Amino acid sequence: MDEKNYQLMTHFVPKSYVDQAQQVHNSNKNKIRNLLEKRKIPDKGWSSELIELLLSEFSSMDSNNFDDSCGLGEREGRIFSNLVLTRNYNFSHGIGRSGDLAEVQPKAIGSSVLNKLTNELLLDLLKISGLTNVSSCIVCPMATGMSLAFCMMSIRQDKHNAKYVIMPRIDQKSCIKSIACAGYEAIIIEPLKVGDELVTNLDEIEKKISELGSESIACILSTTSCFAPRGPDKVEEIASLCLRNNIFHLINNAYGLQSTKLTHIINQAMRTGRVDVVVQSTDKNLMVPVGGAILAVCEKKILKKITEFYPGRASFSQSLDVLITMLSMGSDQYRSLLKERKECFAYLKSEIQKLAEKYNEKVLETPNNPISIAFTLSEFGSDPKKLTEIGSMLFTRLVSGVRVVVPGDNKIVVANGPLYKNFGSHSNSTDKAYFTAAAAIGIKQSDIDLFLKRLIDCSNLHRVLDKLMHEKIRMNEY
Amino acid sequence: MDEKNYQLMTHFVPKSYVDQAQQVHNSNKNKIRNLLEKRKIPDKGWSSELIELLLSEFSSMDSNNFDDSCGLGEREGRIFSNLVLTRNYNFSHGIGRSGDLAEVQPKAIGSSVLNKLTNELLLDLLKISGLTNVSSCIVCPMATGMSLAFCMMSIRQDKHNAKYVIMPRIDQKSCIKSIACAGYEAIIIEPLKVGDELVTNLDEIEKKISELGSESIACILSTTSCFAPRGPDKVEEIASLCLRNNIFHLINNAYGLQSTKLTHIINQAMRTGRVDVVVQSTDKNLMVPVGGAILAVCEKKILKKITEFYPGRASFSQSLDVLITMLSMGSDQYRSLLKERKECFAYLKSEIQKLAEKYNEKVLETPNNPISIAFTLSEFGSDPKKLTEIGSMLFTRLVSGVRVVVPGDNKIVVANGPLYKNFGSHSNSTDKAYFTAAAAIGIKQSDIDLFLKRLIDCSNLHRVLDKLMHEKIRMNEY
Amino acid sequence: MDEKNYQLMTHFVPKSYVDQAQQVHNSNKNKIRNLLEKRKIPDKGWSSELIELLLSEFSSMDSNNFDDSCGLGEREGRIFSNLVLTRNYNFSHGIGRSGDLAEVQPKAIGSSVLNKLTNELLLDLLKISGLTNVSSCIVCPMATGMSLAFCMMSIRQDKHNAKYVIMPRIDQKSCIKSIACAGYEAIIIEPLKVGDELVTNLDEIEKKISELGSESIACILSTTSCFAPRGPDKVEEIASLCLRNNIFHLINNAYGLQSTKLTHIINQAMRTGRVDVVVQSTDKNLMVPVGGAILAVCEKKILKKITEFYPGRASFSQSLDVLITMLSMGSDQYRSLLKERKECFAYLKSEIQKLAEKYNEKVLETPNNPISIAFTLSEFGSDPKKLTEIGSMLFTRLVSGVRVVVPGDNKIVVANGPLYKNFGSHSNSTDKAYFTAAAAIGIKQSDIDLFLKRLIDCSNLHRVLDKLMHEKIRMNEY
Amino acid sequence: MDEKNYQLMTHFVPKSYVDQAQQVHNSNKNKIRNLLEKRKIPDKGWSSELIELLLSEFSSMDSNNFDDSCGLGEREGRIFSNLVLTRNYNFSHGIGRSGDLAEVQPKAIGSSVLNKLTNELLLDLLKISGLTNVSSCIVCPMATGMSLAFCMMSIRQDKHNAKYVIMPRIDQKSCIKSIACAGYEAIIIEPLKVGDELVTNLDEIEKKISELGSESIACILSTTSCFAPRGPDKVEEIASLCLRNNIFHLINNAYGLQSTKLTHIINQAMRTGRVDVVVQSTDKNLMVPVGGAILAVCEKKILKKITEFYPGRASFSQSLDVLITMLSMGSDQYRSLLKERKECFAYLKSEIQKLAEKYNEKVLETPNNPISIAFTLSEFGSDPKKLTEIGSMLFTRLVSGVRVVVPGDNKIVVANGPLYKNFGSHSNSTDKAYFTAAAAIGIKQSDIDLFLKRLIDCSNLHRVLDKLMHEKIRMNEY
Repeated sequence: MDEKNYQLMTHFVPKSYVDQAQQVHNSNKNKIRNLLEKRKIPDKGWSSELIELLLSEFSSMDSNNFDDSCGLGEREGRIFSNLVLTRNYNFSHGIGRSGDLAEVQPKAIGSSVLNKLTNELLLDLLKISGLTNVSSCIVCPMATGMSLAFCMMSIRQDKHNAKYVIMPRIDQKSCIKSIACAGYEAIIIEPLKVGDELVTNLDEIEKKISELGSESIACILSTTSCFAPRGPDKVEEIASLCLRNNIFHLINNAYGLQSTKLTHIINQAMRTGRVDVVVQSTDKNLMVPVGGAILAVCEKKILKKITEFYPGRASFSQSLDVLITMLSMGSDQYRSLLKERKECFAYLKSEIQKLAEKYNEKVLETPNNPISIAFTLSEFGSDPKKLTEIGSMLFTRLVSGVRVVVPGDNKIVVANGPLYKNFGSHSNSTDKAYFTAAAAIGIKQSDIDLFLKRLIDCSNLHRVLDKLMHEKIRMNEY
Repeated sequence: MDEKNYQLMTHFVPKSYVDQAQQVHNSNKNKIRNLLEKRKIPDKGWSSELIELLLSEFSSMDSNNFDDSCGLGEREGRIFSNLVLTRNYNFSHGIGRSGDLAEVQPKAIGSSVLNKLTNELLLDLLKISGLTNVSSCIVCPMATGMSLAFCMMSIRQDKHNAKYVIMPRIDQKSCIKSIACAGYEAIIIEPLKVGDELVTNLDEIEKKISELGSESIACILSTTSCFAPRGPDKVEEIASLCLRNNIFHLINNAYGLQSTKLTHIINQAMRTGRVDVVVQSTDKNLMVPVGGAILAVCEKKILKKITEFYPGRASFSQSLDVLITMLSMGSDQYRSLLKERKECFAYLKSEIQKLAEKYNEKVLETPNNPISIAFTLSEFGSDPKKLTEIGSMLFTRLVSGVRVVVPGDNKIVVANGPLYKNFGSHSNSTDKAYFTAAAAIGIKQSDIDLFLKRLIDCSNLHRVLDKLMHEKIRMNEY
Repeated sequence: MDEKNYQLMTHFVPKSYVDQAQQVHNSNKNKIRNLLEKRKIPDKGWSSELIELLLSEFSSMDSNNFDDSCGLGEREGRIFSNLVLTRNYNFSHGIGRSGDLAEVQPKAIGSSVLNKLTNELLLDLLKISGLTNVSSCIVCPMATGMSLAFCMMSIRQDKHNAKYVIMPRIDQKSCIKSIACAGYEAIIIEPLKVGDELVTNLDEIEKKISELGSESIACILSTTSCFAPRGPDKVEEIASLCLRNNIFHLINNAYGLQSTKLTHIINQAMRTGRVDVVVQSTDKNLMVPVGGAILAVCEKKILKKITEFYPGRASFSQSLDVLITMLSMGSDQYRSLLKERKECFAYLKSEIQKLAEKYNEKVLETPNNPISIAFTLSEFGSDPKKLTEIGSMLFTRLVSGVRVVVPGDNKIVVANGPLYKNFGSHSNSTDKAYFTAAAAIGIKQSDIDLFLKRLIDCSNLHRVLDKLMHEKIRMNEY
Repeated sequence: MDEKNYQLMTHFVPKSYVDQAQQVHNSNKNKIRNLLEKRKIPDKGWSSELIELLLSEFSSMDSNNFDDSCGLGEREGRIFSNLVLTRNYNFSHGIGRSGDLAEVQPKAIGSSVLNKLTNELLLDLLKISGLTNVSSCIVCPMATGMSLAFCMMSIRQDKHNAKYVIMPRIDQKSCIKSIACAGYEAIIIEPLKVGDELVTNLDEIEKKISELGSESIACILSTTSCFAPRGPDKVEEIASLCLRNNIFHLINNAYGLQSTKLTHIINQAMRTGRVDVVVQSTDKNLMVPVGGAILAVCEKKILKKITEFYPGRASFSQSLDVLITMLSMGSDQYRSLLKERKECFAYLKSEIQKLAEKYNEKVLETPNNPISIAFTLSEFGSDPKKLTEIGSMLFTRLVSGVRVVVPGDNKIVVANGPLYKNFGSHSNSTDKAYFTAAAAIGIKQSDIDLFLKRLIDCSNLHRVLDKLMHEKIRMNEY
């Protein structure tokens, strides 16, 4: 709708009405203009209609939506199914070009612009989240594990002979596998135990660096967000180490964007030491479907080197979900969600503390972990079967995300890789079972209340069953 | 709607009517049952409604859609935006698990089943396409280039010391970059010229194998679908070489699924030699948005090794697009599309042949390339600027996909990689400019007619401009 | 997207790309402009995206979609459910105002304009269909029967004492009931029989007029489209009668818009006699869901009188369906559909003729009915039960729309109204059973082939069953 | 998904997972079953997915969605546009049949059942709202005005000679016009003034009845919800009058369903006197788009008589919006909305009272009007132009729904109808200007705050402008 069209509308309705319509409509147009101009997340979330209008305007600029075109290439963005076309908002060309994940596609101007816009809005979001030292970022259309692997692969461009990746121990398969996938050998650094919390053993890292030689080390892969009782790695100190030893520093901040505590230490590390890339999950931080990661850097040229290394095109789907979400959320609501999460974590911690006292258990003291807590299961004995049963009981009661960790589960994760003792607990010395629970973005207090209620049900049930079984066994003895 | 619900409907309408409704409804239910039972693409495409019903039934089995659940994990599949939720049909958990791309997610039974179903239907599609020797396949949620890289990375599990990938020259950046990304050095094999066609130099490959030693070679990466005048690689002979030398054979069949000629030679290669993985693009062959690839193998254990190597979860988006497309297309229409493409290619070739004769040009003789043709531009002189202008002229006339190739464009694609002489032409010895055009799946005869019409316009325009310019120059000489 | 926004896009992509995007985008903008300027159905149907863009632009002008508004009235267009909002494209205010169905709503400029635009496009469609003498029309948000009633009610404004409506007999309940609903007594005119066809008895109409006095007659309600063997009424002659006697002439052209034969005679009647309003169904002619009618007039003031008579607001839903359909269809495809229907009718008639000959039946000669045919069921005896069973047999074989008419079904349709002898056959003198079948817009030749096949199945089955029953009866006689 | 399909799923995933999926899925199935069985609004609103599943299941029972059918009728429910089909959830046959608005369509079992279900759920909603004496109701697919007219027309079936409708004065055009549309003469009863409130003059009604004779009176049309300072009619006393005099009693309860005060007096009237039909708007009470009304009766046979009187089919659109809304709302949230509205009304009244005191104005005392308030504009002088300007000023500030009433606006609403003195104020004796504001369902406290803020802005602005103008005038005097 432009000036001329408004004029034409006076054929149907009085000019004064048209004027008001135009005035309101301009407010929509201005929102779009502001977005393109400022490239910041709007304060107030947009309506679904305005978002769809934006997407529709831009998809109409992609060649697959041209009316009168003819395609003689091997890839013309033709879409067979209307359902597929609709759900992709008529975008079909993906992002990137054979040369570069960030390059513009002449056939797909609309999606190219939206993709770049998404990355700029995302930069705004990272800054709101506390990563003020980040200068550039992209949505990488692969989930965190594969994105970490890809970053590590890209290091090979400069450091052909690197063989190792040093990683303070984190017992998540995808982290361990990402190193193997990238073609490196993982050097795992056992954590120290401070109180109940597992913390980075910096001395051991330094020792390994001098042992292996920095030339042979592709990077240090540190981790911030993690399950208690592991704490976030001391990224600031690691960053100093990396700076001094000229080692690439890759931070796995999987779901850490949602905690200012974690973004703060990363931000500090960026200021005082060396942080090359920080990787975080789009789904875990932005409440979109699984499939993407955010790569954030302080120096633009590092990101350029990575995106140029990407072989070929990639899906636009992740960027689209992220873009829609940022626009519909607005920065105000993003801030509220961060706040709510923090409050929920405090609530979870205090309520479960009460429960611990009641049941003779303990909430492990992990003052640096702002998302996850660990709750001992001392009273449940040491039979692994019975312990993991608690997890199942919660699962069938529709409590998801609670993990029961039982010491003694030793595992080799990748062929020819190291053995992880007490896998899942991040430490060789774990000797007690516990479960973890987390307060992640989007959680409501009602989730926690429901969880606590069901947990009590389970505990009681378990105790009763247990008692019965003991009695039965005793009875059988006779 | 089950028996009981139908009975309840008789409260509202006479039983005889309900009976007919139930009878028809059963036909829908039977379609779903058949799909789950036979795991073949239905002959006749499904209606959008039935597809959406299926998706809705399955997404309701994923925990993020449970009514009464509470999530205490770090990843609970929460979706912020309704638009995002809708466009993802309420699926949010992605596919795979930290351990394996093909693993079932307990939190997401619906998407796990649909993902596996997609892969089984896709197997049916591969067989219809001519790859009858394939025993297993998956949608890999990364486009062809990255999927090729990922396959090559996975080879490292068994062959730690491999350094090289042998590739008969193909001038597409993403192929070349996929090798570098996977951490190997590319050994490029210049093609032979047979007639106008560029064909695989088998002797040279053999020579390189014995030179480097098969232990140091990660794989041979052969290519089938490509731009004329390159022909498809002699995959059958390469497969024999690989079998004899115990070398992994990876075939880049990017858009070759749509040509029975190409699937036939791959199928033969599978029967008589060694073919480990065949990779093809989902978007180019199945008319879905860019973002996925199909990995197909003869031996299931090879695919298992690859999917288990994947670090973490991945997007469900590509599988969803592929599933919807297969169901809405049906095998009958897929066969029609293949047939129509073949006829369009014949039509394109014969019509452009006429044009060539008229304009003193030549359609290069490339009898083995069933998708792309090359048309010389001898009459247009040798000025690269003027030659590439033809491409621009077509582009602004909304003809996409036509590539003008001008000899003399030498390029280094990856840092520290080899120099490609005459980049784009697949050969050091190219000496004439030409353009390529392709007839890919989904093309209509009307596309070709439009293209020819616009091509003539351009040629004429160009000649006129040219003449004017010459005159102008001459005039300026005075 | 305006000039300024395009300029802003150059932040992301090169200007030359933006220029092309803008050029293409302008073509979309021009389509919208042309629509507003010319108010004609576009030749070529619009894409779904462009239609949704138009709807979105206009709905954003309605106050319920204003961002910053507050509503203190009793009707503020608030929509509770997102599903409802989406399916109504964010329109909520309906059409009309307490004063007038055609009036502009200040709160809803977008829907007001679209409503008026719909009516202007519809005028174009009526002209394409052959009603070139129509000067104005509207979508009336009530189906044909209620719309006819409403037109008749509105006559009372000028003719307070009218008591009767003269209607050449048409055995459709909704026609008969519309007269009663409007508060008049129906004067039914038995048809004459010419060949097999039932035609208007003009003499009888004239007789009734002079008998009752034109002052007491609200209108003559004539019918064009109808089931064979009734033919269309002689609307031209009736129009002359109306002109001479100063009687309102209302034509029920329910599904006659799709036949140029029928629109031609109406158009002639308009030229030479008096036709006040022609009413036609939106669903039957335009392939939209049931719920609306088109009121068409030669004199704008008549329509104005009717719309001003409407008490209150009404649903926008029907207009929206009609608008979307006209835009997505385009005039080219509308013409094709009309042509295809005509050909299908000829095909149906000729094929069923062959069947009639084979089975000793007859296709009744009704040369003036261009849509429906009647096929005798002489061979099936005269037992009503057995005859109507044929209908059921076809129904359970998923043939819909075929009606078996059996003489002897006498019915009173409205309380205190007349008795209709042989109801369904339009005539007191019908003495043979028959079924009717029609070729209506949207029908495909494949529908007819399927129908013929199933009809033969039924006939055969019936004969066999019949024979068996006779034998059984005979056997029982012993 | 039935038992068999779940069994088939074990091909893909372990049985224990399938079992949980089935268990959850059953909870969905049970919700549908409960709905069909109990025919009550669920307590908790359904998810969009479940609602769409229900609609999809039912639309698949309508013949237009049968796969293998052929249609030989004149109305086959064919839909041209996919957008139209989607937005109508694949329903196309409308509701009702030529004989009856409530009748089942054999071609459309799904929509027939849903339509009946909608009406039964609606009965539940009416009871929740306080109309416990209602025994039956339907969604009438015409807005309130036309629905009132239709009810009045239907009275003619039994009372052929009725000429008048008695209506206590209500200055809404659509009420007045509905009487004319139905073919009656309106007998307007001026209200009495009690305090500031305008109340029903029962004596005058009785006088009119004896004057005209009850045989000549079609009905008394009373009104409950209305703009202050009019109060709701004394429906209980009118109902007694109607019972004694054997007169049809039609209540226009346009937006009164949302106030228990109003439903209470209607419910009492039903218990103690005669109430035939109560009509209320779907959009105003249920937050759906304009287009439908709810007809509610105590005696089923009255509703039957009305629906049987309807000539032909009608749109399903209104029922669909109502059904979706009731399911997504749930009775809990409906109750909350009623409660919130009531609180907002109290808040509005008390806040505006404060404003009145501040500005030397008065909120008229209308203790019986639970929705609308009137605020005097004494300080703004008596110039109609300047007074209505206040309305415009609010309108341009995006305050909608506030009406400025200025005495002296005399109007004839329908041709040959009576003159309404002070139209808009419901009374011949109105002598002061005022504006009205209402708190209707869906209003938020924030709406009221925004309104008050803007109202103050306007008042100030107006005063300033006024002052300036006076000064200017004075200056000009020199």
